[in-house]
Amino acid sequence: MKTQLEHAKSGTLTEEMQEISGKENININLLCKRIASGEIVIMLRKGHNVAIGTGLKTKVNANLGSSTESKNDSEIQKAVIAEKYGTDTICDMSMSGNINKIRSKIFNSTTVPITTVPIYQAIAENSFDAGEEKIIGIIERQADSGVSSFVIHAALTREMLSLLKERKKQRIMGVVSKGGAMTAAWMFENSSENPFLKNFNKILEIMRKKDVVLSLGNAMRSGCVHDEMDNLQKTEAELNAKLARAANDAGVQVIVEGMGGHVAANNIFNYVKYYKKITHNRPLFVAGPLPMDIAVGYDHVAACVGGAMASGAGADYLCYITPSEHLGLPGIEQVKEGIIACKIAAHIGDSMKLGLSKSDLALSEMRKIHDWEGQFEQAIDKGERARKYHKNYRGACTMCGKYCAIDVMDKYLKN
Amino acid sequence: MKTQLEHAKSGTLTEEMQEISGKENININLLCKRIASGEIVIMLRKGHNVAIGTGLKTKVNANLGSSTESKNDSEIQKAVIAEKYGTDTICDMSMSGNINKIRSKIFNSTTVPITTVPIYQAIAENSFDAGEEKIIGIIERQADSGVSSFVIHAALTREMLSLLKERKKQRIMGVVSKGGAMTAAWMFENSSENPFLKNFNKILEIMRKKDVVLSLGNAMRSGCVHDEMDNLQKTEAELNAKLARAANDAGVQVIVEGMGGHVAANNIFNYVKYYKKITHNRPLFVAGPLPMDIAVGYDHVAACVGGAMASGAGADYLCYITPSEHLGLPGIEQVKEGIIACKIAAHIGDSMKLGLSKSDLALSEMRKIHDWEGQFEQAIDKGERARKYHKNYRGACTMCGKYCAIDVMDKYLKN
Repeated sequence: MKTQLEHAKSGTLTEEMQEISGKENININLLCKRIASGEIVIMLRKGHNVAIGTGLKTKVNANLGSSTESKNDSEIQKAVIAEKYGTDTICDMSMSGNINKIRSKIFNSTTVPITTVPIYQAIAENSFDAGEEKIIGIIERQADSGVSSFVIHAALTREMLSLLKERKKQRIMGVVSKGGAMTAAWMFENSSENPFLKNFNKILEIMRKKDVVLSLGNAMRSGCVHDEMDNLQKTEAELNAKLARAANDAGVQVIVEGMGGHVAANNIFNYVKYYKKITHNRPLFVAGPLPMDIAVGYDHVAACVGGAMASGAGADYLCYITPSEHLGLPGIEQVKEGIIACKIAAHIGDSMKLGLSKSDLALSEMRKIHDWEGQFEQAIDKGERARKYHKNYRGACTMCGKYCAIDVMDKYLKN
Repeated sequence: MKTQLEHAKSGTLTEEMQEISGKENININLLCKRIASGEIVIMLRKGHNVAIGTGLKTKVNANLGSSTESKNDSEIQKAVIAEKYGTDTICDMSMSGNINKIRSKIFNSTTVPITTVPIYQAIAENSFDAGEEKIIGIIERQADSGVSSFVIHAALTREMLSLLKERKKQRIMGVVSKGGAMTAAWMFENSSENPFLKNFNKILEIMRKKDVVLSLGNAMRSGCVHDEMDNLQKTEAELNAKLARAANDAGVQVIVEGMGGHVAANNIFNYVKYYKKITHNRPLFVAGPLPMDIAVGYDHVAACVGGAMASGAGADYLCYITPSEHLGLPGIEQVKEGIIACKIAAHIGDSMKLGLSKSDLALSEMRKIHDWEGQFEQAIDKGERARKYHKNYRGACTMCGKYCAIDVMDKYLKN
């Protein structure tokens, strides 16, 4: 089996490229060229392949998965809800219960591409006794189970951890990446270099065989808006950029996770440009970013602002933030709210980088003639919430009643 | 009685300036200078005066008021809720029931400055038979009742209405300003020039006596993101800029309502700069803006993105948008959601134009040590929602449980 990248490099147009070309309204030769150059990836899931990168609509990801404290069944329901409200991909981060079984149930309940973070299962099942072979075994097992993409924190080196130890007082929030922290913990416990970096080529070979997309995690992202991008973050970003090229050379598709977390609004544009530049325009995955910290309980709204700015600046793929962020494992309702806010961010970002959408125009035309169902059909949640709030007043609504500006002006502007 | 502007022009530092200087941490002489130049206004309400303009925190306004279809009591509750969740001002737009009584009840239930739109009461009580003297009578009565600011659409001329009639096909959404539409309807019905423009000096004299701030409305704002700023909008903006200067010359403080409504995200920055330039940096009031139309049901979230961008670009005063926008009169819960989303927008905007806030830093420092109550105290809603979602796991939370990145890294990074 060849990967989409290998096909693209040899100029072969695949079925998956055909599917994407139709869905995304992109010329298939341009798509193929961008896959070949690493600017676009296709995350594979039969019939629901998802492409991410330059010139395509911003995609949205939902993180979920069992925590040490959660009921596993609700994770399956969350996956269903996330897909219902339009997530493009799901990342299963389960760390308790029968992890293989949960993943399998998520596969059975959804149709979108599924991502995992292999270090999670490795640590959950083996604590820090997980030897390198065990970690690689889990990567193989997850790849075999049909996972579309792995998040791997390969660019966190021992040297960086020593620097972090020295300089940690310069960072308010230290390290806030869970996958990064677990990778670091493994390295400390085993007095070893990063297991993903050491075994990078072996891992690439596993991924290439199944065309699993490599998502290069960023462990060093900032955890509050007062923590600016520092040398640790840049060092990791630069190593990730190198690893991305190596992975592409080995035929593996790559997404780079960058920036993310908490970023002052004024820095978002420049940080996106920085990541895009050093990675030669590879697909950029961003969590949030949160442009403020005191929106706790409403982090999905703050992240919508940061996500819109990041996407507008060129980020290709946004990870949702739920209202439960920083507080606890989200419930089903919070997953829904997180997805919708993230889709709003992606839509606004797309209006900035790709132009205004026809759906906004269609809704406005329906709004002008008080065609309510026509409006709701265009709405981001298919009008579910709008229907709940709509209160009819003789065709208009109860906000203005008979003083509806549209109706008042229609009367006088008619010829 | 002299207005704050008249005092400022003669270099007198007032009690109100003292209050604002302390609250906003601005040098009182600079504040006085900016009031004199028209860059800052103080909306008066005893003990809770609110200043708006250059160098000050972005302020938030909640629109409410009885519609033809609403119960008046719930409007009072909405005012209380809006103040509880941090609105800086309230605009009472009541159009049914005993409007004077509703306004009086809102005064009795709140402490923040209250704005009205006099055309609303004029039309509600007299339909289009309201003669100019009746309109002026209402302005006098509202000023006497302690209103802090009036929204008046004075820059909508007959000539513009003729142009609108000719060109309406070039606008998808026509006119969506309710106050603008009612002013226009009055002009059509009475075959008259704009009553506020005709009686501008007389109205200024009433306002000067009570130091009511003039908020110059924009009737010609666009009603969907596909409607770009056109000549009609610019003509109105330029006339508003002239009227603003005339009002300031007459000793009346002025806010200019600009842009607002629905604006493509890519245009927000430039539109704010345009309004700021033509008004010589007078306080800019913006509703939303909404950078997309299909977020109906979640317009408060989309408006949070637009509001953050506008505030970051220099807008001084944001009008909230609730989840019920375009659908019906909002309920109490939607008023709350609208205010919080708008305060998030203002906070992010302020981080862009004034720098990062200490509250974000304080929350992050509490977050790092798992001091939950310490975090919640800093939160935008004082932690009400965060407390509901927080699920404790041995000091950390159930999102990551024992794999909390902060705890994991603390273990290894301790010296």
